[in-house]
Amino acid sequence: MPSEELRTFVLYDITDDRTRTNIAEVCLDFGLLRVQYSAFAGSLSRNKREELFLKLRDTLGKEEGKILVQPVCQKDVQSVLLHANEPLPEPEL
Amino acid sequence: MPSEELRTFVLYDITDDRTRTNIAEVCLDFGLLRVQYSAFAGSLSRNKREELFLKLRDTLGKEEGKILVQPVCQKDVQSVLLHANEPLPEPEL
Repeated sequence: MPSEELRTFVLYDITDDRTRTNIAEVCLDFGLLRVQYSAFAGSLSRNKREELFLKLRDTLGKEEGKILVQPVCQKDVQSVLLHANEPLPEPEL
Repeated sequence: MPSEELRTFVLYDITDDRTRTNIAEVCLDFGLLRVQYSAFAGSLSRNKREELFLKLRDTLGKEEGKILVQPVCQKDVQSVLLHANEPLPEPEL
């Protein structure tokens, strides 16, 4: 049985600019979209989510940083509360 | 029936330093803990979550910024993937 895809949030705090850029690129490679300066989200199966996590960990290597990968079920996704005052400055990748 | 408390993530991107500090203080007032530089998390009922969201929106006012409040059920909380290389610099409040 193929595992269900869940909306997955990736949050990170990473000190080194280059490493942070690389982490963002890994998220994009997995089809996630940037939702905040240091947060991505997108739909992933459990396998893909674990693969992404391992890739992010490898990419961080020994640099200072923190990575959180949080799946959110459809029911909870529908309860999200969002507010934005645009324009926000474009984060560089 | 009192509404169930769910782990709630608050993510924000806010340009103005002072407003960002105020947003962080609102999160602390609601008993959330800082999990990333611009992310807080803690257990909230639906009512409290909505109250928090309104307070955050008021606090942002007309400043540039984006706020996301996402509840996560217990089942999904247990699937979180976390990695940290310490020490990270202390974020100022």
